Amino acid sequence: MDRRSLSPFSIVPVGVIRTPFAEKFGVPRQAGLVSEAIGVVELVRPFDEAGMLEGLADFSHIWLLWRFDRVADGDWRRRVRPPRLGGNREVGVWASRSPFRPNHLGLSAVRLLEILPGPPVGLRVAGVDLVDGTPIVDIKPYLPYADALPDACGGFADAAPEALVTVRFSAKVQTVLGRVDPDLTLRRLIMRVIALDPRPAYRRRPDPDRLYGMRLADFEVRWRVFERHAEVVELVRAAD
Amino acid sequence: MDRRSLSPFSIVPVGVIRTPFAEKFGVPRQAGLVSEAIGVVELVRPFDEAGMLEGLADFSHIWLLWRFDRVADGDWRRRVRPPRLGGNREVGVWASRSPFRPNHLGLSAVRLLEILPGPPVGLRVAGVDLVDGTPIVDIKPYLPYADALPDACGGFADAAPEALVTVRFSAKVQTVLGRVDPDLTLRRLIMRVIALDPRPAYRRRPDPDRLYGMRLADFEVRWRVFERHAEVVELVRAAD
Repeated sequence: MDRRSLSPFSIVPVGVIRTPFAEKFGVPRQAGLVSEAIGVVELVRPFDEAGMLEGLADFSHIWLLWRFDRVADGDWRRRVRPPRLGGNREVGVWASRSPFRPNHLGLSAVRLLEILPGPPVGLRVAGVDLVDGTPIVDIKPYLPYADALPDACGGFADAAPEALVTVRFSAKVQTVLGRVDPDLTLRRLIMRVIALDPRPAYRRRPDPDRLYGMRLADFEVRWRVFERHAEVVELVRAAD
Repeated sequence: MDRRSLSPFSIVPVGVIRTPFAEKFGVPRQAGLVSEAIGVVELVRPFDEAGMLEGLADFSHIWLLWRFDRVADGDWRRRVRPPRLGGNREVGVWASRSPFRPNHLGLSAVRLLEILPGPPVGLRVAGVDLVDGTPIVDIKPYLPYADALPDACGGFADAAPEALVTVRFSAKVQTVLGRVDPDLTLRRLIMRVIALDPRPAYRRRPDPDRLYGMRLADFEVRWRVFERHAEVVELVRAAD
């Protein structure tokens, strides 16, 4: 074994991404699941020259490589319990997309909506599964002939997760939405995110007494989960 | 901008990959182009416990994240000339999969053939596009629902590169192959690699006087390129 190959090396973030997800709870568990989740990659110097992005607009989708920076340095596990297995079956971390992995690198295929001339120079993308402020370490075009494998099969995660609940809004929340969300974008985002049921897998049963909450796109959202649906019961603009 | 997000961080290789490609020249320009190109990921401690791989065998394909370690530290370019554009049109590095990119991270979807119980614990994979000895920094299952995007379109690289030349073997080389390659694997590998025409794009014209050479799977291979085909004229086992 060539020891040089095994030397640690340093990675410098080339930008950060702004997303509607202020915290881990509620982030879709893969890219592309919520097309309404829009993110803006803000490049930083010296990686932000407009010429570095020339030609990228020809691609419909791009890869973001990024760092799971909400996991503490060095916190990785040999075995994890993927939510898709109900949270009660362990697999090896290499068989998962868990954040608790060596090197904490994440990978997301997102739709490229727009190149932003800046400042800051950046990209508007759809279908993000990243917490607001996540460091981006690489951007690559998605190459269908190499990256889209029609015959791949995916073990326990062969199909996208089903939407687990339908989502309704209380009368009070509908009033708020009528005022702050004239074009329905916030409404759609909330519906899609809650429909994926961000609750931990071991808690996925109706529990109407419990109030779930997350911060999404500058709003505090609270909802309850019933037998066949979820109801959003509070929506207030976040304080800060 | 949160300064903490932009702090450099350290990556530790979790293993290296053994491939037939001793040098950069001849490496297929994306993963999956040469299914005959077999690689073996050798994991290193503490990332090599068999339990870390449990469940991975359920997936047909995996992602390898790796480091372009044949590029000097800090050597990246704002603009590159992708071979797919004939090597004479520049694009921004973010619109390319060039090695000369910030952070030097590579991404390859490969077919998982086998989990190797070791020692060393590892993976046998097909369709590699990595130089022998490349450091691996992450392994992830390929999730069709998130990673295979049927509606993606790929700019200048929408389709796989065409095989540029047909490949023949001289009588002398056929004799060598008859002796060292009873199951035809080396023959197929050589044919597929040369058919992708590893010559730099600006040199892609017939040039029968020129002898091209590469080291592939412990052999030195030499060939000439004619108008409509290539001919392998030498094949000798590498010295070391």
